[in-house]
Amino acid sequence: MLAFECDYLEGAHEKILQRLIETNYEKAPGYGNDSYCESARAKIKEACGCPDADVYFLTGGTQTNAIVIGTMLQKYEGVVAAQTGHVNVHEAGAIEYTGHKVLTVPSHEGKMKADELQAMLDGFWQDVTHEHMVFPGMVYLSYPTEYGTLYSKKELADIAEVCHRFHIPLYLDGARLGYGLMSKSADLTLPEIAEICDVFYIGGTKVGALCGEAVVFTKNNTPKHFLTMVKQHGAMLAKGRLLGIQFDTLFTDNLYFTVSAHAIEMAEKLKEGLKREGYPFYLDSPTNQQFVILTMKQIGELQKQVSFDLWDKLDEEHQVVRFATSWATKEQDVEALLALLDK
Amino acid sequence: MLAFECDYLEGAHEKILQRLIETNYEKAPGYGNDSYCESARAKIKEACGCPDADVYFLTGGTQTNAIVIGTMLQKYEGVVAAQTGHVNVHEAGAIEYTGHKVLTVPSHEGKMKADELQAMLDGFWQDVTHEHMVFPGMVYLSYPTEYGTLYSKKELADIAEVCHRFHIPLYLDGARLGYGLMSKSADLTLPEIAEICDVFYIGGTKVGALCGEAVVFTKNNTPKHFLTMVKQHGAMLAKGRLLGIQFDTLFTDNLYFTVSAHAIEMAEKLKEGLKREGYPFYLDSPTNQQFVILTMKQIGELQKQVSFDLWDKLDEEHQVVRFATSWATKEQDVEALLALLDK
Amino acid sequence: MLAFECDYLEGAHEKILQRLIETNYEKAPGYGNDSYCESARAKIKEACGCPDADVYFLTGGTQTNAIVIGTMLQKYEGVVAAQTGHVNVHEAGAIEYTGHKVLTVPSHEGKMKADELQAMLDGFWQDVTHEHMVFPGMVYLSYPTEYGTLYSKKELADIAEVCHRFHIPLYLDGARLGYGLMSKSADLTLPEIAEICDVFYIGGTKVGALCGEAVVFTKNNTPKHFLTMVKQHGAMLAKGRLLGIQFDTLFTDNLYFTVSAHAIEMAEKLKEGLKREGYPFYLDSPTNQQFVILTMKQIGELQKQVSFDLWDKLDEEHQVVRFATSWATKEQDVEALLALLDK
Amino acid sequence: MLAFECDYLEGAHEKILQRLIETNYEKAPGYGNDSYCESARAKIKEACGCPDADVYFLTGGTQTNAIVIGTMLQKYEGVVAAQTGHVNVHEAGAIEYTGHKVLTVPSHEGKMKADELQAMLDGFWQDVTHEHMVFPGMVYLSYPTEYGTLYSKKELADIAEVCHRFHIPLYLDGARLGYGLMSKSADLTLPEIAEICDVFYIGGTKVGALCGEAVVFTKNNTPKHFLTMVKQHGAMLAKGRLLGIQFDTLFTDNLYFTVSAHAIEMAEKLKEGLKREGYPFYLDSPTNQQFVILTMKQIGELQKQVSFDLWDKLDEEHQVVRFATSWATKEQDVEALLALLDK
Repeated sequence: MLAFECDYLEGAHEKILQRLIETNYEKAPGYGNDSYCESARAKIKEACGCPDADVYFLTGGTQTNAIVIGTMLQKYEGVVAAQTGHVNVHEAGAIEYTGHKVLTVPSHEGKMKADELQAMLDGFWQDVTHEHMVFPGMVYLSYPTEYGTLYSKKELADIAEVCHRFHIPLYLDGARLGYGLMSKSADLTLPEIAEICDVFYIGGTKVGALCGEAVVFTKNNTPKHFLTMVKQHGAMLAKGRLLGIQFDTLFTDNLYFTVSAHAIEMAEKLKEGLKREGYPFYLDSPTNQQFVILTMKQIGELQKQVSFDLWDKLDEEHQVVRFATSWATKEQDVEALLALLDK
Repeated sequence: MLAFECDYLEGAHEKILQRLIETNYEKAPGYGNDSYCESARAKIKEACGCPDADVYFLTGGTQTNAIVIGTMLQKYEGVVAAQTGHVNVHEAGAIEYTGHKVLTVPSHEGKMKADELQAMLDGFWQDVTHEHMVFPGMVYLSYPTEYGTLYSKKELADIAEVCHRFHIPLYLDGARLGYGLMSKSADLTLPEIAEICDVFYIGGTKVGALCGEAVVFTKNNTPKHFLTMVKQHGAMLAKGRLLGIQFDTLFTDNLYFTVSAHAIEMAEKLKEGLKREGYPFYLDSPTNQQFVILTMKQIGELQKQVSFDLWDKLDEEHQVVRFATSWATKEQDVEALLALLDK
Repeated sequence: MLAFECDYLEGAHEKILQRLIETNYEKAPGYGNDSYCESARAKIKEACGCPDADVYFLTGGTQTNAIVIGTMLQKYEGVVAAQTGHVNVHEAGAIEYTGHKVLTVPSHEGKMKADELQAMLDGFWQDVTHEHMVFPGMVYLSYPTEYGTLYSKKELADIAEVCHRFHIPLYLDGARLGYGLMSKSADLTLPEIAEICDVFYIGGTKVGALCGEAVVFTKNNTPKHFLTMVKQHGAMLAKGRLLGIQFDTLFTDNLYFTVSAHAIEMAEKLKEGLKREGYPFYLDSPTNQQFVILTMKQIGELQKQVSFDLWDKLDEEHQVVRFATSWATKEQDVEALLALLDK
Repeated sequence: MLAFECDYLEGAHEKILQRLIETNYEKAPGYGNDSYCESARAKIKEACGCPDADVYFLTGGTQTNAIVIGTMLQKYEGVVAAQTGHVNVHEAGAIEYTGHKVLTVPSHEGKMKADELQAMLDGFWQDVTHEHMVFPGMVYLSYPTEYGTLYSKKELADIAEVCHRFHIPLYLDGARLGYGLMSKSADLTLPEIAEICDVFYIGGTKVGALCGEAVVFTKNNTPKHFLTMVKQHGAMLAKGRLLGIQFDTLFTDNLYFTVSAHAIEMAEKLKEGLKREGYPFYLDSPTNQQFVILTMKQIGELQKQVSFDLWDKLDEEHQVVRFATSWATKEQDVEALLALLDK
């Protein structure tokens, strides 16, 4: 069986496992106070070109979103996201569980538009009853989006400008950040993201780590006593070294970017093959997730030999499917998949 | 100045004040255990044709929505509402504050459609990732809606059928219930609402009381230890008599319905006058709220002598305004308003 | 039957009912923006000698505690209370429902001691693991306490000094504030409470109102967008006039203090009578609640003709009972009770 | 420097790291649906002698406590713990963050007593105002306790009997479960714990894993849609294999018990040495944490060469310190510590 259903099918990059073994018997203080976390934080700040950033390590994406949003918002505020945003759809209500509403703007292939965001915020403040409504207190977007699409530098800067006009922070969910930055279509760098956004996270779970996300507060804006609130959310890892070692490894010798580039290369190869065969695409994704429209019959056939993800059903005969590559995808597997798809 | 901006401008029906005075020095136990609450509960159950109902008194609408929804939902569930539902827009995030998401379906002049609800629920259960999503655990609708519109008996029954198919309760927000039931377009009675819905509330604040809403659980489905959770929400009134006396009075000699019918009569008179003058309506409301499209110039002129509510801005030149009548609206005031609107 | 079980047995002072009737048909804006609330706020600020105070009206005590504590605390903080504090025992977990812990210090007849508070706060800050603990973020005390006892001016000032040393606000629950201030033992005035405390509330429900508590923020320290959070808690009354009219009446011509003094006079008469008859007191309460130790036999006899409150059981043969007087207690009822207690 | 400050200083048992490497490139489904989790669950059920148990893997102790307690309690309930219980002291209010109160009973060297628990529960139910209080809905205890002490089989069974009498579940926090079971003083086995308790967790983080706790529901009592609530708490690991592989390894060939026994052996050696030298113990701990009373001067001297944990300050001259051994403690380090302590 070939497997393309997501980007977290394998364990971790072997350099990470190697480091875990090498450092295993060193005694390290808990809760992120170890030297590996310290080193990883320094390397991430360096990679972000943001020496004053605060960096924290958490274990997963939903956890990170709930904690960043839940601790940055005031009690009367909600977070604005595209209708399709992960926080609005696929986190089992983790944001609402923190007591905050997810306010939505339209989604355009996963992305929000600066002018629609502006209109939404204007609408709120011009409404004479807005004291009876949830204050928009933060903007959340994902890069790449849940549909694999990317904001251009201008699009992101425009959204940030709207945010700053309304004095609310911009938060970028980078669960697949490496796959965005290494896309051939990307015109954004990590330092540019750090400059534009108020807070973001660098996804590890989907980009070569066993687990782990690195939250970066870029504007001296870490919520006070953040670690106590991390603990309160049940998210403080006793052996913080597990996260420190992984991110220290990923940010040594550009490993994070190298493995991300590999996933993109595999996705491009797949995309070209699918195009060549004339498969219709649901949308044009420049990153590691490719969305293709198959017939039910094609799906049935393919499922015998490949696992992949089923998305929106378009009609009785057609459904969108997703193929995801990752840091660990083997070229021969892409070729085997393409061979199966050769009509 | 004339005032038509809402339906809670005056105090209470004078019979209520009279009863407060008459009963003032009787000593009554607290927390809803008094004889007035007891009597009011009996009369409401009678009026609902539902002898087994459980009736509780709370002070306001947002409070009632938060408590009913927050106590009936399981932790993994959210409530489904029309996009324009009060709980989704104008309650400052009170539902999310209880930890639950408001899931939305499209709004059609304030109403949801049974088939769109069905499609939404089907979509949830057919989604293979639904365990990562908020479970739709209840349906909320308002009668009349925030736009003054009404569900027909068939529309409500169809929605209830969908709910029951998915084993989730149907909750009707009756903040203006009297104005709905007394509408000339209504084909629903209070006993029918009690039969169709799993829980609903009879609004007092907007229909002649100083404050107060009566929650009716119709299917032996009151959440266990409901009163403790009312207390936990800070919603238990020490002098429950204040609510009991008001509802006992409103449900004596059909007062609730008589005063509601008066508001409808006033609204009809206003509507006819506006039609006669050729004012365009935003939508056709059969209840006590009338939505008219005025030019900015008309609005400016009118505001010198009348207070009314500004709603959606349609374009630079036109805006929707709302005139509301109530149990206390005087016929001469409606006539004075119409005189001002006479072009 | 005589009734002494609590201080909210009757409706409201007749002047309040009179005002409700007089003002009933005036049209007033909602949500506390009416002229009655405005006037009541001005009179309360005057009575507090605190022209810069912010005053808000809520409906009940538990609601007020949950909102004040829930909006003033940071997410990583809890509130410190005496073990017997109302927020720790009798509010069904309303504080925890806002996500915050109640931290406790020992209770001495309902009161906390400044030195024990200091020790508790020192202990927290000296604990090297305090980042894993709930930060004490506020101090809550009641005046009078749940046991009818009073803090002296020095005791309150000492507690305030400890609070300020640790930069946390002092919050005084004045559910029975009038009965405290009018006690013959009180050496505190309302302006002094306003000066010493950062926030407190003036109880209406137990002191002559149908419902209502007036929250006073004395140090320009109202939480931002407080009203939105009041709405979020389901505590915003549409007809705010109901609260405004009541407090405006209570703070006209010293009515709040006059009716409070009456309750104290009745309590003193009762206390003297009980002492004369040799009944043992559980503690020496200088306010409207009197705690007496009766035998089970005495309790059984008395319950045939009087309703009163059962408190702690001391042993198989003895239990503490509470008799409460109020603004509405009639002298002849006290005399009748004493006659029954005459052995 | 020697290090004895806690039991999570090193990484993981080398067999775990070995397994991570061996399985690294196998493609596995996410969220705990992989074969390693499946295998680990089977082995744990076997070890518990409880074939019908439900087993779930989470990453840390506070997270586990918040999720188990937060999902098993009804909204009107709180959890009962000893005053010194981890959930009451050292989890930054994680339980209250779920909206639930921690109710306390006295602590006796970290343990609660069945009769005091019974008295507390009787007191609640006999209190006529208990509907205004938090319902005790669950009992939490830790084994070993935070002070290293152990419940005997009879003590645990007596507590369970009280729980069952009141129809509330008993939850055992086994963060250091292995160190409890392997203690020479223990008279409880894992199957007995599974039989007596309604839910418990087997701690991995402190007993040889990089991270991970295994929750065991023993009575077909897993809360409905538990995984959705795990996700809602931000606690669902995408690569569940990380937890599955670790627990599968720990429960292969009794590894969990073997490594636990080693920690106990080291603790016993340390304890004997300290006794021989005449150091006073704060209490008699039969597990891997040893609490000794040192003078400030001794502490100052020792800190130059050893890291250890500072606990309660007894007076100006004396403080309790904790030395912890673990699965990874080397005998030579214990000997070195004892040499330093040799007066």
